[in-house]
Amino acid sequence: MQKLQADLILSGNHLLPDSTHKNVVNSGAIAIKGDTIIAIGTQKKLLEAYQPDQHIHTEHGLIMSGLINTHTHAAMACFRGLADDLPLMTWLEEHIFPVESRWTPDAVYQSTLLSLAEMIKSGTTSFCDMYLFTKEVARATEESGMRAWLGEVFYDFPSPCYGASENGFAYVDELFAHYRDHPLISVTANPHSVYTCSPDLLTRLGTVAQDNDALYTIHLSENEAEVATCKERYNCSPVEHLKQLDLLGSKTVAAHCVMLDDREIKLLAKHNVKVSHCQESNMKLASGTAPIVKMLEAGITVGIGTDGAASNNDVDMFGEMNTVAITHKVARMDSTAMNAEQTLYAATLAGAKVLNAEKQTGSLEIGKKADIIVLNMNQPHLTPMYNLPSHLVYAARGADVVHSIINGRVVMKDRILTTLNEPEILARMREIGQNVTNHGKD
Amino acid sequence: MQKLQADLILSGNHLLPDSTHKNVVNSGAIAIKGDTIIAIGTQKKLLEAYQPDQHIHTEHGLIMSGLINTHTHAAMACFRGLADDLPLMTWLEEHIFPVESRWTPDAVYQSTLLSLAEMIKSGTTSFCDMYLFTKEVARATEESGMRAWLGEVFYDFPSPCYGASENGFAYVDELFAHYRDHPLISVTANPHSVYTCSPDLLTRLGTVAQDNDALYTIHLSENEAEVATCKERYNCSPVEHLKQLDLLGSKTVAAHCVMLDDREIKLLAKHNVKVSHCQESNMKLASGTAPIVKMLEAGITVGIGTDGAASNNDVDMFGEMNTVAITHKVARMDSTAMNAEQTLYAATLAGAKVLNAEKQTGSLEIGKKADIIVLNMNQPHLTPMYNLPSHLVYAARGADVVHSIINGRVVMKDRILTTLNEPEILARMREIGQNVTNHGKD
Repeated sequence: MQKLQADLILSGNHLLPDSTHKNVVNSGAIAIKGDTIIAIGTQKKLLEAYQPDQHIHTEHGLIMSGLINTHTHAAMACFRGLADDLPLMTWLEEHIFPVESRWTPDAVYQSTLLSLAEMIKSGTTSFCDMYLFTKEVARATEESGMRAWLGEVFYDFPSPCYGASENGFAYVDELFAHYRDHPLISVTANPHSVYTCSPDLLTRLGTVAQDNDALYTIHLSENEAEVATCKERYNCSPVEHLKQLDLLGSKTVAAHCVMLDDREIKLLAKHNVKVSHCQESNMKLASGTAPIVKMLEAGITVGIGTDGAASNNDVDMFGEMNTVAITHKVARMDSTAMNAEQTLYAATLAGAKVLNAEKQTGSLEIGKKADIIVLNMNQPHLTPMYNLPSHLVYAARGADVVHSIINGRVVMKDRILTTLNEPEILARMREIGQNVTNHGKD
Repeated sequence: MQKLQADLILSGNHLLPDSTHKNVVNSGAIAIKGDTIIAIGTQKKLLEAYQPDQHIHTEHGLIMSGLINTHTHAAMACFRGLADDLPLMTWLEEHIFPVESRWTPDAVYQSTLLSLAEMIKSGTTSFCDMYLFTKEVARATEESGMRAWLGEVFYDFPSPCYGASENGFAYVDELFAHYRDHPLISVTANPHSVYTCSPDLLTRLGTVAQDNDALYTIHLSENEAEVATCKERYNCSPVEHLKQLDLLGSKTVAAHCVMLDDREIKLLAKHNVKVSHCQESNMKLASGTAPIVKMLEAGITVGIGTDGAASNNDVDMFGEMNTVAITHKVARMDSTAMNAEQTLYAATLAGAKVLNAEKQTGSLEIGKKADIIVLNMNQPHLTPMYNLPSHLVYAARGADVVHSIINGRVVMKDRILTTLNEPEILARMREIGQNVTNHGKD
């Protein structure tokens, strides 16, 4: 019998199509044609049916969906460890803002490349980013081959990128036009927060989102100070403020949502607002612990984000999953809370849902885009193996990922990046890092 | 000029002798003779002065003290992921105890080897263990070349290892005799807890500790249930109970200490009791968050432990440091709490102090034993580098460790274990793991 053609077959000891342990395929394989998954099954079955141009077999490999980081600031990788263990305002005003005010497009481009390298090497295949100089972020992202939702941040004060807001709208119009039909990059509308954006700015960006059928991504109810400021100015909470401005909807992606009461949770659920949960950053900045378990009970779709490397200090979604799963147990004094499958779901298919992209990515299904990672399970910390989601959430780390395929393209093989020049990126970033600290010494 | 002889010189871009960033030696090196550090300085200086038999240079390497895991149950590596996300008693009584009741000396030996491999590969050079079949644990540990404090656990019910307590005392007498002058292995006295050991048993083990000048290691105030049981039985808290039995002292190592009030903290400080803080396990089992910052303020020496892999689910001390540093920030709503240097200190020199071994290990100093790890800093998640303790606590992971030297002996080079046969250990553990689950299906 004539074999069918496939561009790539991946095979390994285990294939986990989603976040459910019982769905594991032992001696599994997946076939890809172009950017799309065309078959999933046992190695035997797939190799009988398909003739692949390329076959990557990983004996102790686990084949799974790539992880989805629903909130980050990739270019802030350059600030990792620049200043830690400080009060939030000291950190921002004395360390981050001064460096950002001198920030150049090239530094953003280079620093984004660094974060892309780190994300791919730790198993992330899709991310949602909010930052400055988004054309540079997008240029780096295109080179990497990652799937991304990218937005230029807006606030009431002048931006290091575009100056006055007015120029910002022209800047994002160009972004939307340029990436309209891009297979991997989607542009988002991106107010920074309710405390840095006037109601007019928030509303106008809502119109931009609607006009472009784009996500509306915003930091929301991140900490007590934000809530207090909002109450003082508008006599309501940040969630209520967005509600009054008619900005709560299924394409609203709210990052953090630490300070929510039960009524606000209901409101987010009612409007099908998506939440990006950034636990490690919320801990490091002492913002608090978001009531994620309650949000899930209310039916809210919750994805996981690392936030930027300046407040995490890494973008390893495996580490983030571990923190999420154990934090909510102790926060609720309930060891059954946020179990491994729920947590893995949040980092995969729920992440895709947060980004309104569940038809494209977030699980291994025929017809979906091929966003796939392979882990090497032949390691002491992953042996023996009783339950895959448990290992992935409680024991695995980004460094266990050996191959990464995004949109059908191999972007990492045997931990070597194929789209990015890692040694060059690291060398360049060391120079940029030296400039950052030398400037501080002036 | 005649060069001095050294057995081994390690050199690399950075050498961090302790937990303080300002003490970094750039282009640093360290010379070792036998089991001892004999010189620390720049590469230039050391290579001019010494002729080493072996020279390991790691261009982007960071040379630092190995990490000290002050509380684990190595052999429980076999149970990693066997059962998670369950109430504590269901987990113990329906999953862990049934398997442990069928536990054989060989399974303990093999499973300990697995954990030793994981510990070395994630940068731990010393550990304090509490488990069953300690002769097997010690045999595996001797093979690995790790530095360890090992104890056979006692409780009022029969042990799978020695049966009745009486036999247990004979068993530990043999252990003490066998390891009396061992360069790497120290035996400890090891009551499980105040709720599983009668006052008589606790006291008798206190005498064993005293007679052998050994550590007295115990789980203490781990959770609400323990405190409630103790209050019901003895009308006092676990700490008060030990106080009344005259068992609080500088060689008492209390693991967990989650449920302490201010008065108990003062009591532990007054008696110079050492604390092993196991945050990830306390979170995963929903036990609570130990008041570590208060303990440090009271002058208590606090080390870090991973607890066993059955409740963590790894023994990666880098991940544990990250969790410790960020948890106490959010628990106290203070982003300056438990800073990177404090956390790194807890995982190194304070860990050595917990084990009364600060003259031997815990920092790189001339005359101390050579317990040293080297990390590869030439990676996206560790670039650029502004502050080493920050990177080590907030961004590094066990997989970044490339070489490990314990007591002057190279136990891992380029991530290949030299004392243990990793492929054989993994293959054997897969078989043992299959027996564990097959038995459950009978």
